[in-house]
Amino acid sequence: MTRIRNLRTLDVRFPTSRQFDGSDAMNPDPDYSAAYLILQTDADERFWGRSFVFTIGRGNDVQTEAVRALHQAVVGRDIEDVISDLGGFARRLTNDSQLRWLGPEKGVMHMAIGAVINAAWDMAARYAGKPLWRFIADMRPEEIVACIDFRHITDALTSTEALDILDAADAGRAGRAQELTARGYPAYTTSPGWLGYSDEKLERLARQAVRDGFRTIKLKVGADPAADLRRCRIARHAIGPDIGLAIDANQRWDVAEAIEWLKPLADLDIAWVEEPTNPDDVLGHAAIRKAVSPMRISTGEHAHNRVMFKQFFQAGAVDLIQIDAARVGGVNENLAILLMAAKFGVRVFPHAGGVGLCELVQHLAMADYVAISGLMEDRAIEFVDHLHEHFVDPVRIERGRYLAPSAAGFSAEMHAKSLEDHLFPEGRVWRTTAA
Amino acid sequence: MTRIRNLRTLDVRFPTSRQFDGSDAMNPDPDYSAAYLILQTDADERFWGRSFVFTIGRGNDVQTEAVRALHQAVVGRDIEDVISDLGGFARRLTNDSQLRWLGPEKGVMHMAIGAVINAAWDMAARYAGKPLWRFIADMRPEEIVACIDFRHITDALTSTEALDILDAADAGRAGRAQELTARGYPAYTTSPGWLGYSDEKLERLARQAVRDGFRTIKLKVGADPAADLRRCRIARHAIGPDIGLAIDANQRWDVAEAIEWLKPLADLDIAWVEEPTNPDDVLGHAAIRKAVSPMRISTGEHAHNRVMFKQFFQAGAVDLIQIDAARVGGVNENLAILLMAAKFGVRVFPHAGGVGLCELVQHLAMADYVAISGLMEDRAIEFVDHLHEHFVDPVRIERGRYLAPSAAGFSAEMHAKSLEDHLFPEGRVWRTTAA
Repeated sequence: MTRIRNLRTLDVRFPTSRQFDGSDAMNPDPDYSAAYLILQTDADERFWGRSFVFTIGRGNDVQTEAVRALHQAVVGRDIEDVISDLGGFARRLTNDSQLRWLGPEKGVMHMAIGAVINAAWDMAARYAGKPLWRFIADMRPEEIVACIDFRHITDALTSTEALDILDAADAGRAGRAQELTARGYPAYTTSPGWLGYSDEKLERLARQAVRDGFRTIKLKVGADPAADLRRCRIARHAIGPDIGLAIDANQRWDVAEAIEWLKPLADLDIAWVEEPTNPDDVLGHAAIRKAVSPMRISTGEHAHNRVMFKQFFQAGAVDLIQIDAARVGGVNENLAILLMAAKFGVRVFPHAGGVGLCELVQHLAMADYVAISGLMEDRAIEFVDHLHEHFVDPVRIERGRYLAPSAAGFSAEMHAKSLEDHLFPEGRVWRTTAA
Repeated sequence: MTRIRNLRTLDVRFPTSRQFDGSDAMNPDPDYSAAYLILQTDADERFWGRSFVFTIGRGNDVQTEAVRALHQAVVGRDIEDVISDLGGFARRLTNDSQLRWLGPEKGVMHMAIGAVINAAWDMAARYAGKPLWRFIADMRPEEIVACIDFRHITDALTSTEALDILDAADAGRAGRAQELTARGYPAYTTSPGWLGYSDEKLERLARQAVRDGFRTIKLKVGADPAADLRRCRIARHAIGPDIGLAIDANQRWDVAEAIEWLKPLADLDIAWVEEPTNPDDVLGHAAIRKAVSPMRISTGEHAHNRVMFKQFFQAGAVDLIQIDAARVGGVNENLAILLMAAKFGVRVFPHAGGVGLCELVQHLAMADYVAISGLMEDRAIEFVDHLHEHFVDPVRIERGRYLAPSAAGFSAEMHAKSLEDHLFPEGRVWRTTAA
């Protein structure tokens, strides 16, 4: 019997705030960070499970502590039990009767649980010798359904409906897996559009993005209305009429403010307006969407669980959603969200960037294409070209598309040297900074 | 100049699960706990600020760590600056650009921030020599408004509307403060109704509650429909037709399940149904309320911020709400919630129990009566008779009413001996348990 013998955690941070990478209306100075974890087992190291919670600096210690608090819940468990019942594993962690009080199913504790669940999926995919997207895509519909906790979403999606969606996609799986392997999955890029960049840099990077093959770019907005209009016009001029131009306000506005602020942008053919207001505000998003129609509204990178997504769908509050691999309760909860999106006919544009979010979320989008929605050409995964060099199996982008990963696992593993150098506060990078 | 020189934290836990006190459908085995904090200053100890986050056991270490993470944000600050601008103090903590990612405004990090904010209010009230309820009730309307962050709620409540509500209540303040001091504030009790109690114990405690002067009692439900009906009938029989009988499902049901489960209880004149489903589910509560009308629906002890409460009000999802002193972003955010409740005409029945929640929340209800809603006879504060002996200024209940506290501060301070004995895991109580 092979057991989990340690849950190792590392507080890893990258001093990204020095270059203004990643600056937006609510996050002026992020230091991209990971509360990183390794499920160490009796087996060879290549079968260990890795994952992380992404944060933007301060508080990564608290997040790491929350992951460590799950030590007792996983250490000593038989790997075969975990791998053969990923639904049960997730449910036990999520429904711990005492930890539940700290959410429930939201914030630091839920993200910690999600990361441990993701590490278990990484381990399972490694044992299967498959990249995670294919591991999921090769599961039978009823196996996928067994991974999902339908509690509190049955008014929007029952297990029977989920099975119907998966069954309908079943026949075309092989062809889509082949298509995905051959062509990759569409990406869009946020690299040109950080708020801290000059107009000149924005224009240059926007043109470059088109030359690189991206079909959509995204700009951060929300600091100043005049600047937003100017920057959107510069970007639209640079990319021409055929490339999508999305904007992201990162929760900056109140409801009336969002409506007012978006008016001048109406004739710029905006692909979508992301996070116009507070991520908890289902009714607020619905009111904004109604007022600025036909502008498309979206949210999701901070939507903390399936119950929030359910309501965004039920209220008709969004035209499309972002999912995030490290915000909710792991792969299992994201499968529930993807199935609801498929049922409600809402397109998914996964949130990525930061450190490692691209590496993780590509698997979910690809699994969705092969086994759930069956669609990818009307959607795209966010891409930001930061920090991929720290990963053992980094994303590969060609002509504006994510190539399908082929290595076994969830692509979450960082190089030992990267972990060591960026340990906070004792790693080389931070000792140098302090000095 | 007097400064904050330390943010001391203590992980304090009470082994309540041994007696099944506090058992409900989702929390079968709580060990009531506090992530306790002391804002230590250069001044005399009696002016230090105390508060805590309430949890139910596992994870209290993570919660304590989250409080400690705010050390840098508060240590070194001039007390006069803090006390004279409690709005600015709260906003700076809540809007920390990096910590915000861990919520935003939800879960472990938000509760930690809320506790530090509450400790600052405790300190401010101590300096003023007033119990917190009176400290708030003596603030001018514009001072109260200045404490509130209206971001993301202006579509439901503007600062002007808030000021109007406070101005309208201004004239009657003195009379109501006198009334409150003379008669106290109504309480209701949950003591008879824990799920783990036998029918005999339920009946005995229900009768006792009426003899003790309580006008409403509450039962935990949601484990078994037949048992719920039987227990509600026993309770109704024991208390007679004139005493309120509320029930609390602690999030146990899906939407359709709640509707189905509540039907057999329709003729028992239920005062309110608390937390019928997931606390994030605004639309779910609205659907349940519509289906079981005229049964009254409520939620709030797990509603994590003002944006959630805003939506419960906007959607007409609840007949009344619970507020909790240690869940949201401190006194400031609870003032926003109380003002919205006043505007929407929704009655407030504050959540209490656990350890110290009664001590804290009584102040908010009383401030609401004197300075905001001007009402108390149509509402009541939850009361559970557990663990009050550990507090320096414990609640005083007489004939089913909370007597108004008279000691300066927020009543959050625990006895030094209680803190020492219940430190986890090294305190006397836990060492004994382990042995």
